[in-house]
Amino acid sequence: MELLEQRILKDGKILPGGILKVDGFLNHQIDPALAYEMALEWKRLFAGEEINKVLTIEASGIALACMAGYVFRCPLVFAKKSKSRNIADDVYAVEVESFTHGNTNTVLVSKEYLGPGDRVLLIDDFLATGAALVGLKALVEQAGGQVEGAGIAIEKAFQGGGELLRAQGLRVESLARIAEMGDDGSIRFC
Amino acid sequence: MELLEQRILKDGKILPGGILKVDGFLNHQIDPALAYEMALEWKRLFAGEEINKVLTIEASGIALACMAGYVFRCPLVFAKKSKSRNIADDVYAVEVESFTHGNTNTVLVSKEYLGPGDRVLLIDDFLATGAALVGLKALVEQAGGQVEGAGIAIEKAFQGGGELLRAQGLRVESLARIAEMGDDGSIRFC
Repeated sequence: MELLEQRILKDGKILPGGILKVDGFLNHQIDPALAYEMALEWKRLFAGEEINKVLTIEASGIALACMAGYVFRCPLVFAKKSKSRNIADDVYAVEVESFTHGNTNTVLVSKEYLGPGDRVLLIDDFLATGAALVGLKALVEQAGGQVEGAGIAIEKAFQGGGELLRAQGLRVESLARIAEMGDDGSIRFC
Repeated sequence: MELLEQRILKDGKILPGGILKVDGFLNHQIDPALAYEMALEWKRLFAGEEINKVLTIEASGIALACMAGYVFRCPLVFAKKSKSRNIADDVYAVEVESFTHGNTNTVLVSKEYLGPGDRVLLIDDFLATGAALVGLKALVEQAGGQVEGAGIAIEKAFQGGGELLRAQGLRVESLARIAEMGDDGSIRFC
């Protein structure tokens, strides 16, 4: 998606350790007009699917998921991160490792809001190793629902998570796919 | 706002301890069409103000703030909760007590995304004791910005936070104001 790629080139910053900082428009400060355009693009890409729910993970996926839900005319659910391993009976839960923060969270969704009738679009701002998507997919499967695919803003293709998930049959639509980030701050898209 | 009050009566649940559970449409599963209508209502209420930024606190304020930013045609920023008291130089920080979770968080905004030029609309899903709004207001003031007002979904008027903040001169526009919640599950709006 040209609009997103241009914005990454304009406002993104590469930090040591393979971190792409886009918190000026995507995940601390957010440009809602861009989020809306991204949602329209996912709608175009998944036009053939009967999606009735959007699922994301707190916190930085929520704004994108809200716009996606608005455009797909369905509710969104955000999975909640919990430090506690004591899981109540009324939730689905998985363990998700965070690449950015270097820790593991238990990620929860109430059983009230995910079930066998659901055909779910997963939404997230980043796809790197794929751990968050694997976790969200597992939550939907625990609930007996069906994952129709994943809409991602930025895929760091060089970290391999996207290819792994596609090889397992998950449809992943990333609006910007980064092939390479140079130490000189350069970014090459796929 | 009639639409929100009706939705609270239809889908809200009162739990022991004065908790109003609205996580079927507001803060776990979210109805984005309702969020959009709420944003339009805040736009109508704050029509005279030159708002150039929306500020909320993670996680449940983000969806509403995203829609508000979309309607006000300005970016939104979400303040991040941190367990750590080690504050970096490049952030504004305040301590905020959580009524729901019974703990205290350090709440941070990067100095890059809040500054003297900003005329800010605060957005949150709930207003009870007012601790979150006080914290967000303090962040804007640290940055030298101006708070134009606060847009709240549900105010628990009986907890007094709203009246306190209004008495201090903050313009608070709550779309549903609850005067009383009965042990029998009844809700009376102001």
